Amino acid sequence: MLRAGKLMISPGESNSDMRYASQVATPDDILWFSAGAICGLVASKLEFDRVREECRRGVAVFTEEEFGGPGYVDIVKNIAERYHLEGFSVPKDFPLGLADKLRSTGLIIEPAEEGFFPEREFKQDFEVEKITSTLRAAEAGCRRAFDVLREADIDSQKRLVWNGNVLTSEILRSEIDCTMLKLGCLATGTICAGGAQGAQPHNAGSGALYADKPIVMDIFPRSSITGYWGDLTRTVVKGRASDVVKKAFDAVFEARELAKSMLKIGACPAEIHSSAAQAMEKRGFYTGVTDSGNFGFFHGLGHGVGLDIHENPRLSLRNSAPLKGGEVVTIEPGLYYPEWGGIRLEDMAYISDDVKILTEIETFLEL
Amino acid sequence: MLRAGKLMISPGESNSDMRYASQVATPDDILWFSAGAICGLVASKLEFDRVREECRRGVAVFTEEEFGGPGYVDIVKNIAERYHLEGFSVPKDFPLGLADKLRSTGLIIEPAEEGFFPEREFKQDFEVEKITSTLRAAEAGCRRAFDVLREADIDSQKRLVWNGNVLTSEILRSEIDCTMLKLGCLATGTICAGGAQGAQPHNAGSGALYADKPIVMDIFPRSSITGYWGDLTRTVVKGRASDVVKKAFDAVFEARELAKSMLKIGACPAEIHSSAAQAMEKRGFYTGVTDSGNFGFFHGLGHGVGLDIHENPRLSLRNSAPLKGGEVVTIEPGLYYPEWGGIRLEDMAYISDDVKILTEIETFLEL
Repeated sequence: MLRAGKLMISPGESNSDMRYASQVATPDDILWFSAGAICGLVASKLEFDRVREECRRGVAVFTEEEFGGPGYVDIVKNIAERYHLEGFSVPKDFPLGLADKLRSTGLIIEPAEEGFFPEREFKQDFEVEKITSTLRAAEAGCRRAFDVLREADIDSQKRLVWNGNVLTSEILRSEIDCTMLKLGCLATGTICAGGAQGAQPHNAGSGALYADKPIVMDIFPRSSITGYWGDLTRTVVKGRASDVVKKAFDAVFEARELAKSMLKIGACPAEIHSSAAQAMEKRGFYTGVTDSGNFGFFHGLGHGVGLDIHENPRLSLRNSAPLKGGEVVTIEPGLYYPEWGGIRLEDMAYISDDVKILTEIETFLEL
Repeated sequence: MLRAGKLMISPGESNSDMRYASQVATPDDILWFSAGAICGLVASKLEFDRVREECRRGVAVFTEEEFGGPGYVDIVKNIAERYHLEGFSVPKDFPLGLADKLRSTGLIIEPAEEGFFPEREFKQDFEVEKITSTLRAAEAGCRRAFDVLREADIDSQKRLVWNGNVLTSEILRSEIDCTMLKLGCLATGTICAGGAQGAQPHNAGSGALYADKPIVMDIFPRSSITGYWGDLTRTVVKGRASDVVKKAFDAVFEARELAKSMLKIGACPAEIHSSAAQAMEKRGFYTGVTDSGNFGFFHGLGHGVGLDIHENPRLSLRNSAPLKGGEVVTIEPGLYYPEWGGIRLEDMAYISDDVKILTEIETFLEL
């Protein structure tokens, strides 16, 4: 007799495990379960037709009434009964309130230790296509930024001026984001950080942009249609870069190319990270920490991308599990110094027998 | 001795309770707790400076190390020890995996039955201002749509043509969304549903838009800066509306105005809903269900809006708790018939001694 199923209750739109299992982007919660070879979705009346039309092949779709709903406690109890289950494995972020209620009916509810669908790390061809398609939108957004920066003038205070206004991080970001929006891709965290702001890897950037200073543009939209993300970073200078910025750019560029060349099935992420870090150190760019914060290269080299923007595998010192093939990863070394700002250059790659660099847009410093 | 604190671990950006308690929009998890009169936030090194700068007044900010972290189990145990707590009340969607680990150390972890911050229902003045400001962006998006529809031509197949292309739901949506994006507001679900598609309240719309058919435009952006939402729906016809569409429009308009006039402290939401429904029924628009789905007016009249797009109070048959003052609500009656589509008209109001209609944009049918 079969004892434990799997159970998940979350919205397909914002929860990537549910999106993966159901392929439906419902804004509201739906219920997914598996019991041996059977996978099912339970949807409210409002969502039933859409879920049945759009859901992943091989998944049975039920109304809530079919399992004695609405009301998740009743529905889950009835699923357990019908399929002779004593309990369910659930994602570790399963809501505690519902878990307690289910447990109080006698069901065993066990949170998974790690990811609920570890196979998400290894992409199928159709997933690589979707990620690449989102990446193309990111590249279109980036090209729009290049155009705006090329068109910009420089005023007496060295500020960039575009369309009669001082060009700010906010304006540049909205030009990038609108370009991607028109391609069906939504960005919520586009970074356009100029000068010293670029020294904080997560600073989105604000206020006027200046000539002769590096501008870090990290562009990571999600397709509103497929749910897959793309990720791209370029750093450019409008005008003339200082010597140290030029040298940092060359170091980051070299580190990125070196890391890309090391990607293959069986390669160790921690070693790739180390090699990239060493390449930058050899050129005199050291990493450390002062009272005012971190400097140098102080984040991971890259990460997996799919239905989440950050997913396994992590390419960092802490991951020495060899690449297996099927991963889509970013390679994004960076250098950050409060005195002049940051340089980050990010491409994406698909790991297979024949590793494929997915990013097509060119890399350069000055425009 | 104090026994139970409150505890929440989630990202400020996407979790509204955390946004409310911290006022910081971190993409990653932060930890919030209260112990008697003390409220504290625990942030990772990466987020610490930003959290300290931006967080709500009166909240103490700690590094993870200060409570023996990183690692939430240790941090929470140390918080409990320092403040002499036996356990914590947590939101009902608190992650089960972490809850089980905390419980296994002997802490009592109790999910809240209802909302974690019920006071969120009653807005302070600064919140009403922020909601209104987002609503203004929605109105700007809507005006952009009006302009596009006015500019559009009609081809021999009655399709709308704009800028040399067939005008689709997708294009109209991206025009609305880009307008709002440039005002710092992000929309992820804008509805532009033409003709029969409009008969499904949640259908976002796709494909060509046609003359003489109603187009439902439901626009609900969130401010990327403040986190507060706005919500607005208008339904228009490019060209001439049919008689039934005109009559339905008048019925929905009357229902909306009637409902707005009934808003006051002490009013019963269920009664307002009923009155709006009856007003439409009196004009001959009945509600029911067939094999192909629901028709008439089959959703709630409105809902609260704040850091969530749908929050308390619900204005529906199921809520007879009198309005208390401080709520910001939508009033959005609609009529839906598969034969010709849908009409929905939505305004927002702030409940106080002197009820204020927040929506300013005009309501009309034909353009």
